Amino acid sequence: MKRLQWAALSAVEREQALTRPVQEVALKTRDIVADLLRQVREGGDQALSEITQRLDRTRMDSFKVDDDEFAAAEAAIDSDLREAMTQAAERIRAFHAAGMIVDYTVQTAPGVSCERMMRPIGRVGLYVPAGSAPLPSTALMLGVPSQLAGCSQVVLCTPPRQDGSADPAVLVAARMCGIEQVFKLGGAQAIAAMAHGTASVPKCDKLFGPGNSYVTEAKQQVAQSGVAAIDMPAGPSEVLVIADAGANPAFVAADLLSQAEHGPDSQVLLLSDSAAMIEQVQADIERQLPLLPRAEIAHQSLQQSRLIEVDTLEDAFAISNRYAPEHLILALRQPRDWLARVQAAGSVFLGDYTPEALGDYCSGTNHVLPTNGAARAYSGVSVGSFQNAISVQAASAHGIAGIGGGAVVMAQAEGLHAHANAVALRLQAVSI
Amino acid sequence: MKRLQWAALSAVEREQALTRPVQEVALKTRDIVADLLRQVREGGDQALSEITQRLDRTRMDSFKVDDDEFAAAEAAIDSDLREAMTQAAERIRAFHAAGMIVDYTVQTAPGVSCERMMRPIGRVGLYVPAGSAPLPSTALMLGVPSQLAGCSQVVLCTPPRQDGSADPAVLVAARMCGIEQVFKLGGAQAIAAMAHGTASVPKCDKLFGPGNSYVTEAKQQVAQSGVAAIDMPAGPSEVLVIADAGANPAFVAADLLSQAEHGPDSQVLLLSDSAAMIEQVQADIERQLPLLPRAEIAHQSLQQSRLIEVDTLEDAFAISNRYAPEHLILALRQPRDWLARVQAAGSVFLGDYTPEALGDYCSGTNHVLPTNGAARAYSGVSVGSFQNAISVQAASAHGIAGIGGGAVVMAQAEGLHAHANAVALRLQAVSI
Repeated sequence: MKRLQWAALSAVEREQALTRPVQEVALKTRDIVADLLRQVREGGDQALSEITQRLDRTRMDSFKVDDDEFAAAEAAIDSDLREAMTQAAERIRAFHAAGMIVDYTVQTAPGVSCERMMRPIGRVGLYVPAGSAPLPSTALMLGVPSQLAGCSQVVLCTPPRQDGSADPAVLVAARMCGIEQVFKLGGAQAIAAMAHGTASVPKCDKLFGPGNSYVTEAKQQVAQSGVAAIDMPAGPSEVLVIADAGANPAFVAADLLSQAEHGPDSQVLLLSDSAAMIEQVQADIERQLPLLPRAEIAHQSLQQSRLIEVDTLEDAFAISNRYAPEHLILALRQPRDWLARVQAAGSVFLGDYTPEALGDYCSGTNHVLPTNGAARAYSGVSVGSFQNAISVQAASAHGIAGIGGGAVVMAQAEGLHAHANAVALRLQAVSI
Repeated sequence: MKRLQWAALSAVEREQALTRPVQEVALKTRDIVADLLRQVREGGDQALSEITQRLDRTRMDSFKVDDDEFAAAEAAIDSDLREAMTQAAERIRAFHAAGMIVDYTVQTAPGVSCERMMRPIGRVGLYVPAGSAPLPSTALMLGVPSQLAGCSQVVLCTPPRQDGSADPAVLVAARMCGIEQVFKLGGAQAIAAMAHGTASVPKCDKLFGPGNSYVTEAKQQVAQSGVAAIDMPAGPSEVLVIADAGANPAFVAADLLSQAEHGPDSQVLLLSDSAAMIEQVQADIERQLPLLPRAEIAHQSLQQSRLIEVDTLEDAFAISNRYAPEHLILALRQPRDWLARVQAAGSVFLGDYTPEALGDYCSGTNHVLPTNGAARAYSGVSVGSFQNAISVQAASAHGIAGIGGGAVVMAQAEGLHAHANAVALRLQAVSI
């Protein structure tokens, strides 16, 4: 872990201190993914079989999870886990339902009504990764809002296990969200299948979910070529903690470690106005780290971490807004008083008893969030991510008589005379 | 114009009937744009000067519009146009203000609060094209919502005229929205300047606005590389009209022509269950077309248009949802009764007295809309396009005691033991 004193850094050093671990997509990755997309586009299910056998070392005739496999999953899953997922789904549902984007109407002039009419996106595809372990929580985070939005076709892809089966917890989570179309496909080939559609996998209009660098690159490529929309660009997970002198160093250390265990390219940052707190956290990290099963991953990730001493907490918030972290933990005595200063972040966790892990699983917020500074211009997944807004306008004869003249003037100024004419014809009809 | 009878078409012919004019981005365009982006990224303002001299044939020392030019624009603009723009801006403001995404809070469990906290995107860049003529209306469509959202830095780029000045109406429109930072830059180089920032042009986090194929490709490239977010992929403009036997053929013809005059690659579609109506519209198009200053452009565009006879209006709506038009005009007797059938479209115009041109300028809705079928998964520009949602959660000791156990179970199931530990440490502290 690198310890830094912000006030002592030059502009260049500050820039370096906030630079994420390099993750330029290698040209090789780009080409491999482009080739996989092409293979699936041209070869359909046959290509999916060949790629899955080669990359996942699993021979599969059919990718679709059938009723028997769903039933076996329901029987296999531990009751504690089912209960935890059921309650998490309920809280996710409660929070997301309240944030649905709704219809509204404004009378913008006499006889002129303008409206926003919401519609679910028709065909959506969800990707649930299973890198080191399957992530049923991600199935809930994507499945619940897709169900609330009312999408008519929801497809979920998740990588097959070596024996060709899907993780039972992921299947149970999918069912909790009413998802019946689950395919055992992973990686860029899963994204290709949902974007282009094959004989067995339905084509989707928008794709959601986190994934490794191949999945991310595949999502970017299908979005770029206009084949399917995507939720957001994704990158390695990250957390920034702002802690004051009164924070609990063991808690802070545990939060930093829980981010660090995600992967060797995860980044964790601690900002504090207390040198003593930074030292205590560092000591606690060293105490807790060896006890973790994923200590090796966390150890690697900590190489890129930064413990930064700031002069004031105001400075800490300025740094955080510049970095725009995916997760922002405010381990402060009066955390809510500082909230107005937060300008860019994915999700914020207030106080000592709101660890990031709570939001990752079951507070009710979404854990599919913008990384890599994307929080400056992207939001996390919400029901709105699964909805389209269609604008509607209705003018009566009286309405166009009132506002049509302005449209004619503006159309003429822009040299668009057919536009002016379309309005003028109505104005003539109305004035007769 | 191609006349078709839907019921008589094979599946392949139907597919062809709804295919947009081919607009695969030529590899050459892709390379030219990539090169322009690189030049501006590396060469900054100097590169911008060189490119502008070469492509816009204008020699400029400074791109920024100064106070004198703003003042001259205010003096130069016609009072009718100013009045039309002022009223349009008011209606756009009224409609968009009502659609702002707002904060909310849900208590998802005792002692657990989950919140959505809205923030304006900090730095936004607006592109206002001036292909055949400058488009002050687009400055209002982008400027008004950026101002409502409260973005702290709003930059607007619009191509310079041959004499190095900016269009006065665009400058006045920018001022109406409180925008002071206007740069006379066009094309891919303007997108590059706003995405990367130069000594004179501030870096932006999200870019908005329509443009030609170079602008569109540049936006896609900066979005793909993660340099800046964009509003949506853009393509040539298009309209689909559904008309019944009672429609006014002269109105329908005028609406089709007002779309066709946009550019030779625009597409217009008419669907009707009345063969007589289709014939009358066709005759009216032939009557109105020669009278238009942009008759040649409209004539070219009409080559790709389709007049399709359907058996029933239900069929027409099924076709429209499959096509997902940017603009959808319902020239029907009871248009509102059909609205529930609209699943995918950018903006809908109801009845005989709501021509598309009204929404293009001054009904109050936005005219920056998804094209090329993107309406299946994208919405038009709104205030929400300029806002970020940040989720916030706060659990008390009591709160985590209630829900923390579930997080531990789920984290363990996913093999993320540091996550489990971060929660377990708090649970221990709470139970003491």
